[in-house]
Amino acid sequence: MDLWLKEGQIENAAMTYKIKETLVTKKTKYQDLAIVDTYALGRMLVLDGIVQTTVKDEYVYHEMITHIPLFTHPHPQKVLVVGGGDGGAVREVLKHPTVEKVVLCEIDGQVVTECKKYLPEISCQLDNPKCEVFIGDGIKYVHEHRNEFDVIIVDSTDPFGAAEGLFGGSFYEEIYKCLTEDGIFIAQTETPFYLPEVVKQVYKDAKEIFPITKLFMAGIPTYPSGFWSFTVGSKKYDPQSVDLSSTIEIDTKYYTKRLHKACFVLPKFVEDLT
Amino acid sequence: MDLWLKEGQIENAAMTYKIKETLVTKKTKYQDLAIVDTYALGRMLVLDGIVQTTVKDEYVYHEMITHIPLFTHPHPQKVLVVGGGDGGAVREVLKHPTVEKVVLCEIDGQVVTECKKYLPEISCQLDNPKCEVFIGDGIKYVHEHRNEFDVIIVDSTDPFGAAEGLFGGSFYEEIYKCLTEDGIFIAQTETPFYLPEVVKQVYKDAKEIFPITKLFMAGIPTYPSGFWSFTVGSKKYDPQSVDLSSTIEIDTKYYTKRLHKACFVLPKFVEDLT
Repeated sequence: MDLWLKEGQIENAAMTYKIKETLVTKKTKYQDLAIVDTYALGRMLVLDGIVQTTVKDEYVYHEMITHIPLFTHPHPQKVLVVGGGDGGAVREVLKHPTVEKVVLCEIDGQVVTECKKYLPEISCQLDNPKCEVFIGDGIKYVHEHRNEFDVIIVDSTDPFGAAEGLFGGSFYEEIYKCLTEDGIFIAQTETPFYLPEVVKQVYKDAKEIFPITKLFMAGIPTYPSGFWSFTVGSKKYDPQSVDLSSTIEIDTKYYTKRLHKACFVLPKFVEDLT
Repeated sequence: MDLWLKEGQIENAAMTYKIKETLVTKKTKYQDLAIVDTYALGRMLVLDGIVQTTVKDEYVYHEMITHIPLFTHPHPQKVLVVGGGDGGAVREVLKHPTVEKVVLCEIDGQVVTECKKYLPEISCQLDNPKCEVFIGDGIKYVHEHRNEFDVIIVDSTDPFGAAEGLFGGSFYEEIYKCLTEDGIFIAQTETPFYLPEVVKQVYKDAKEIFPITKLFMAGIPTYPSGFWSFTVGSKKYDPQSVDLSSTIEIDTKYYTKRLHKACFVLPKFVEDLT
């Protein structure tokens, strides 16, 4: 059988992947969950038909959503990951020895369970004693914790359906209050190529709340257009002007200290959205 | 009829595009040529089943392959484009008022003819009096011209089949001789994500010939992985340290003076190929 997965995020254009094996496919309380093994990119997590992460390129997303804020903050001790049930962000967070605790707040416990089973390269640090996995609503969790986290990483699905409430001004206000007084927030914020209005709105919303708001780009092959934006909101430290000369060296495949600053230099059409 | 184009460059993974209209499809002396209109990206040129350029995202490729070398050279007067029959690079070259002549050397005259007919946004400057369109073999052309061009742009298809001879040390030696004494060469050099060995080899080949060899990246949605490399070989000027403060302002959608330097800061896995 010649089985292909056709991704459905963008209308009238789609990535397709030849499938070696379907490892799990189920309907959870929140979404359709599948983990499939592909010939081109290895195993991938697919939620509601959208590729979330693949073992071949996950490092780009997880390194950039983590190391940019954690190297911008001079001494991150407590980190919250909202979403990110695959565990990739947690794995990268725990490369920072200053971190004493990372809380993963994922709404869908099935994502955690299945990723621990089928994507061990990504989920490998979820059992680390420094990691607390909390299954529940991220919006509620953020609302109930005040002045607590040095870094909050919003590692969500797209701003439609389940994750809609994780984008926008009212959530960013809650994030602001959940952060310590010099805290930093980061979120994945879609592709400016196909969804310029989303990128623009998110940036505007964040900018109304955070004194320092910046957007950067990374090349993520399995996300539509391959060119993805992240938005950083910071109370005190500017990710683009922070002194990185004395930060520790960590093992990465995409992030470098030089790229930490260069990735904020935007193409004209993206600059125009900020 | 629900007609979709499935691109065939990468094994076991493919981009697919819903087709509005097939404008032309023919077998030329060198390749299968098609121009189709798509719902997601407008009209696109497809050679041997591989998407070469689309009206929606062509600006990234054409701006970056042109403005990086032309703004690195302090006074580019004569420019050669090898390949590039769609005319996009020529259009960008002619935004530089110092340029007195640009030669387009395209092996397949049918590409020029059909692009002039169906992709006027891209081919619009091919009839400019400063542009000479020469239909012939780029390797032969470069061999027969010595010490003549300030900038040579190798705007080729992939290094398989027709364009194979446009990659590699022996061609770069000819390019070197075809350039003036302070000339600069640039080529599109594939994606480091799917073809790391090609990127590595091309860089190595260029580095053996040019005193200054640099690689940069750009986000090109319709090329596999969306994250594309370009290699610059320069006799005298370093594209990363050139003073851009007094260069003219031109109308672009991707290129900026700040990005001119930042795009050379590479992700770790790409840095490792150089």
